[in-house]
Amino acid sequence: MSNFQPQSVYDVVVVGGGPAGLMASLCLTTYGFNILHIDERPHTTTAGRADGIQPRTIEVLRNIGGVSTAPIPGGPIAGHSPVTGSGVAKKMISQGVRVYEVAFWDPTATQKLARTRRAPSCPDFVDVVDNYTLLLHQGLIENAFLDEITAVRRVEIIHPFVLIGLQRRTVLPNATRMPPNGLFRPYLLKDCRTLPADASDPLSGTHPVEAVIEHADSKLQHTVRARYLLGCDGAKSHVRRCIAGGQVGDGEWQGKITMQGEATDIIWGVLDARVTTNFPDIKYKCLIHSKSEGSIMIIPREANLVRFYVQLQTSEGGKVVSIARDKATQDICIARAKKIFEPFNLEFGYVDWFSVYQIGQRIASQYTLDHRIFLGGDATHTHSPQAGQGMNISMLDMYSLAWKLNLVMKGLGKPEVLLPSYEHERRGVAQELLKFDAAYSRLFSGRASDATHLTGGVDAEKFIEMFKQNAFFTSGCGAVYFGNELNALPGSPAVAGRHGAAFNPPGGKLTPGHRLTPGRVTRTADGNQVRLQQEVKMNGAFRIHVFAGDLRKTKGALDRFAAFIDSPASFFNRHRVRAGVFSSIVDGPAAVMNHTATASNAHVFNPFFTFLTIVGTHWYEWEVDVDIPSPLRLYRSQVYGDSLFDRRVPEVGTNAPVHHKYGVDLGKGAIVVVRPDSYVGAVVELSEEGWLGLNGYFAGFLDRPGSDVKAKI
Amino acid sequence: MSNFQPQSVYDVVVVGGGPAGLMASLCLTTYGFNILHIDERPHTTTAGRADGIQPRTIEVLRNIGGVSTAPIPGGPIAGHSPVTGSGVAKKMISQGVRVYEVAFWDPTATQKLARTRRAPSCPDFVDVVDNYTLLLHQGLIENAFLDEITAVRRVEIIHPFVLIGLQRRTVLPNATRMPPNGLFRPYLLKDCRTLPADASDPLSGTHPVEAVIEHADSKLQHTVRARYLLGCDGAKSHVRRCIAGGQVGDGEWQGKITMQGEATDIIWGVLDARVTTNFPDIKYKCLIHSKSEGSIMIIPREANLVRFYVQLQTSEGGKVVSIARDKATQDICIARAKKIFEPFNLEFGYVDWFSVYQIGQRIASQYTLDHRIFLGGDATHTHSPQAGQGMNISMLDMYSLAWKLNLVMKGLGKPEVLLPSYEHERRGVAQELLKFDAAYSRLFSGRASDATHLTGGVDAEKFIEMFKQNAFFTSGCGAVYFGNELNALPGSPAVAGRHGAAFNPPGGKLTPGHRLTPGRVTRTADGNQVRLQQEVKMNGAFRIHVFAGDLRKTKGALDRFAAFIDSPASFFNRHRVRAGVFSSIVDGPAAVMNHTATASNAHVFNPFFTFLTIVGTHWYEWEVDVDIPSPLRLYRSQVYGDSLFDRRVPEVGTNAPVHHKYGVDLGKGAIVVVRPDSYVGAVVELSEEGWLGLNGYFAGFLDRPGSDVKAKI
Repeated sequence: MSNFQPQSVYDVVVVGGGPAGLMASLCLTTYGFNILHIDERPHTTTAGRADGIQPRTIEVLRNIGGVSTAPIPGGPIAGHSPVTGSGVAKKMISQGVRVYEVAFWDPTATQKLARTRRAPSCPDFVDVVDNYTLLLHQGLIENAFLDEITAVRRVEIIHPFVLIGLQRRTVLPNATRMPPNGLFRPYLLKDCRTLPADASDPLSGTHPVEAVIEHADSKLQHTVRARYLLGCDGAKSHVRRCIAGGQVGDGEWQGKITMQGEATDIIWGVLDARVTTNFPDIKYKCLIHSKSEGSIMIIPREANLVRFYVQLQTSEGGKVVSIARDKATQDICIARAKKIFEPFNLEFGYVDWFSVYQIGQRIASQYTLDHRIFLGGDATHTHSPQAGQGMNISMLDMYSLAWKLNLVMKGLGKPEVLLPSYEHERRGVAQELLKFDAAYSRLFSGRASDATHLTGGVDAEKFIEMFKQNAFFTSGCGAVYFGNELNALPGSPAVAGRHGAAFNPPGGKLTPGHRLTPGRVTRTADGNQVRLQQEVKMNGAFRIHVFAGDLRKTKGALDRFAAFIDSPASFFNRHRVRAGVFSSIVDGPAAVMNHTATASNAHVFNPFFTFLTIVGTHWYEWEVDVDIPSPLRLYRSQVYGDSLFDRRVPEVGTNAPVHHKYGVDLGKGAIVVVRPDSYVGAVVELSEEGWLGLNGYFAGFLDRPGSDVKAKI
Repeated sequence: MSNFQPQSVYDVVVVGGGPAGLMASLCLTTYGFNILHIDERPHTTTAGRADGIQPRTIEVLRNIGGVSTAPIPGGPIAGHSPVTGSGVAKKMISQGVRVYEVAFWDPTATQKLARTRRAPSCPDFVDVVDNYTLLLHQGLIENAFLDEITAVRRVEIIHPFVLIGLQRRTVLPNATRMPPNGLFRPYLLKDCRTLPADASDPLSGTHPVEAVIEHADSKLQHTVRARYLLGCDGAKSHVRRCIAGGQVGDGEWQGKITMQGEATDIIWGVLDARVTTNFPDIKYKCLIHSKSEGSIMIIPREANLVRFYVQLQTSEGGKVVSIARDKATQDICIARAKKIFEPFNLEFGYVDWFSVYQIGQRIASQYTLDHRIFLGGDATHTHSPQAGQGMNISMLDMYSLAWKLNLVMKGLGKPEVLLPSYEHERRGVAQELLKFDAAYSRLFSGRASDATHLTGGVDAEKFIEMFKQNAFFTSGCGAVYFGNELNALPGSPAVAGRHGAAFNPPGGKLTPGHRLTPGRVTRTADGNQVRLQQEVKMNGAFRIHVFAGDLRKTKGALDRFAAFIDSPASFFNRHRVRAGVFSSIVDGPAAVMNHTATASNAHVFNPFFTFLTIVGTHWYEWEVDVDIPSPLRLYRSQVYGDSLFDRRVPEVGTNAPVHHKYGVDLGKGAIVVVRPDSYVGAVVELSEEGWLGLNGYFAGFLDRPGSDVKAKI
């Protein structure tokens, strides 16, 4: 490994090689940035730790990777050109096991332990494609990321940015001196800070962050400069300590950033093991409450492992108390588990991993101090593992930050709006999680009412009710954002004074700040039946969905919108990097097999927007070249017919089910802006008021860089 | 490659490394046999040739590979244990493109060429999971097979046959001297024959086939002995010549096996190319008829290629005639294509492959002479490629033969019944194909009425009508088998005198000789939502589906059936290899995490049958250990609840949709026997008449080998 040499300047330094850091690395590598990624561990996780991937996270992972030239209008259709890697989601899915159902086991009047209820893990009202939790150990998850990053780095990407001169070759001048998966290990972060402005420092304006890293074995140190640094280094984050100060040993209760929240005295053991048992639901996620011995949660795992979360309590003088943390051994954990499982047999074989944790919820008072060095993942929020949320929310922290950094670093995004929105949106989700976790874990530990309620009894009914109520949140789909400049909810800053009446037309069922729900459509370029959600892979572009409804009624509006897009006044032409220097969309090698005759030379590609046109009129009844105006039809591989049955709107049959599901008036149409992270940003009428509203919406967080962009990049 | 050395004795010799031969190799390797597989080509196909995989073939490929210990009752559930390879179907799907729709282009009153119709490639009434044709070039298909064979050979399989002493190690004593993918190349078959019985020849009784093979470069010859030999060596099959005789140059019209059928003078060119065009449907399968220049079919392909089938005709003295085969160059083919495409532009770039063929249909008069040396694939049937059927039917020939050979070679199948059924079933399908192809290709070439009808005009209406009518057949789902000993249709030998009244109960919608249609169910062992069709991977076992309907009404019958299975008189105990020496199902390492307490020691595993119990009563309302009698419940990972919505029976909601779809009376239940190739073999009442009927059914083609089996193996 010693032949890998860090450079001295990077776009971004990512500290930490767990799921959050890997998500940051994968996203930023996909966007074409040069990153330094370090981890102090010499290897990926070999056992244990986090293991549950929730439905929304699977949806996100499915949207990452496989980036080809698809987002270029006129480019090959997805699946028709080589792609990067095999897909991080597919790899994980092929290696994990699935949980669709949860079983609740409690003492009953007649039985020591009985199944009192079953419930779907992801209830039917949650509209997701992958309606299960995927379970595999953290090392497999990390390796799937690393394999994908390797694939992305290896491919000579025919990438949008090739067209604007940001070639990968330029970005990665010393690719051969970097590890193929981009991760330098074992390297420790020794120090990091944001340097003050200094006219004598040529990097001061663009790369104010300085970090000192050290090889764990050779102790060789390197000082590197970067635009940004991301601290994904876990609950004991050294990045946090570097920027926040405070004393070692203060438990992060001092310094400029503090960890707020509380701990309990409730101790749990967690282990991964193979067992022999006559417990019938051993391959289910089970929430098991004994009468007086405490609780257990079990989760099935790959390779015939079972994950056990075991409450470690004992009886002292008739009072139930937690076992002291230093006495909580693997043997005691196993003994407790066997006790709680009575009257069922439970014999432990191979134990893959064992650990102990204390229930508590803490959240960082701030995620960043200067919008140059950011924290995320466990460095910003810790909680109990039972809800299976931690790794998911940590990964999605970085997924959420990466696209904003992309826009800012490429000179298009307003840093003063986009960068604060990271904490605004993600801290809100983390707070929801902590609130849920506090209630859930206490209820599960039989400590619902208060800390002195130590009878060991659990209110099963209340617990099950809570489980069900929170399924939307625990699926990940309930991680919704409040109104801000990015989420054009009624009354939000995004709509104020900006043709606000055109936003959120009546009847609409898509909500800004919520994810785009699934819908199947027919891609008219090749007649394939596809999932609209996954048509544009994460590439940093806003996805402008034009729901054209009934073409006979919307033709005029559609033509006017198309003309507007090509006008200099449109958001599409206002917000571009060095306007005018893009290749015309008909020029590239990707134009093979696509129309050249009908393309307008006036329309020049802007990689930060892509258009998807979905037509309600049956697609057999119209022609792309006749009925879909340019430039919408130039995004030839993103024109769709909406006539595939959807069981969630069975009443409409095959008559525009997605329009109905999304609440789009077939007579009027609508424009739905989906952010690069597949959250709905804005929904407007398909009308002049609507697109002028969008102009205001985008102006709220995008610059009009014009010719000064080069300097910014 | 010279370090690979053929042995002198094999179970089976497979000649030909195309899709048919590879299917034979994959299936027989999966069944645990030692095969010699040779191909005269030094490499896999590099370009062109067959490229279309039909829905039914995808379904079959999905059912191959990934063999784990799942079929062992008490063994790990699918997905919970390591499997072989990544799945041959998944690999192909990730590399190919999909055709869902077909466009028909014809001259109209006002336009030289216009789209006159669209139609789904696989209409909605065809009930398949993969409702598209998958397109990728033959080399990718071959490599997917070879990768999977490598994976199967590499895995130290914890395999059903481990339990009966047929360990892979024994079967493949010289594995290191064989190519990892099992394919010896370049090797030619010089001669093959079945030797007459000879008491002085110790192999005479078991390995009567002798083959002489020669390394194409070193010319080193080897003589090998085998039980069986499969000729998958194409239209000019040398195996066929070896066994059938006749003179070289006789066009296979002489000898003991003749190729029957006819050729036409219609010449087509076929090429794979990249093009630039303004033809809007270039990424569709299109059937294009020009007014007087002939016809073209185009098919989209991976890597932005387009497959062109171009009719090569010209005008001579006002009469349209075919271009002579020796004058049909690539340039002429391209010129004809451009002409037919007028008024659209069509510019050819890179050409990947070019070939010429003459339309004709021929079928071998016999597929075997002695049931030791068999022919299949192109060696038995040739036809025009446009219908996209050839490779599919060829692969399925071998898929169909392999499981019968498996039963026979393991001493359980009656060779005199099972082996002739190969030709009976597959020749019927090939004849259907030829009939369809003759009509279709002539109609497409504008030669519908008769050979003198040479105006070049095509009856578009008639053609489209024919296309639609045949979609069931071209999807592969219409490859249905007639009644015989294996397909218990009314009046077939399988039911005659065998409680025939219990077969095919009224209302049933599954038909013996047809494939099992898809259905989604909940696997109660882990609550996973799964596809019933794919729950048991191809492992040579008959899949006994017990549809238990409404448990309150069927409980008695279910208990009696379970008792019957365990009785000495049942088909399960009559037809086994060395009865009594199997491991008890609770003993193996696979028993980890599964019930030990409830298993009956009296029930011993029989790898040739597996039981799937599907209950109509909602699965929340019953318990495997209480309501499902042993031994059915011992197949713990194959007990299912039937409560997942199916859009094909929307009227029942979640109330036993699969029962309704298959036409099973909830009050009575039914037993559905699915053959190892996922064809329905028999449907009977869940009653004593029913299972006694099944006893008769299985006795028709299975031996009762008892203790003399060892010798047979």
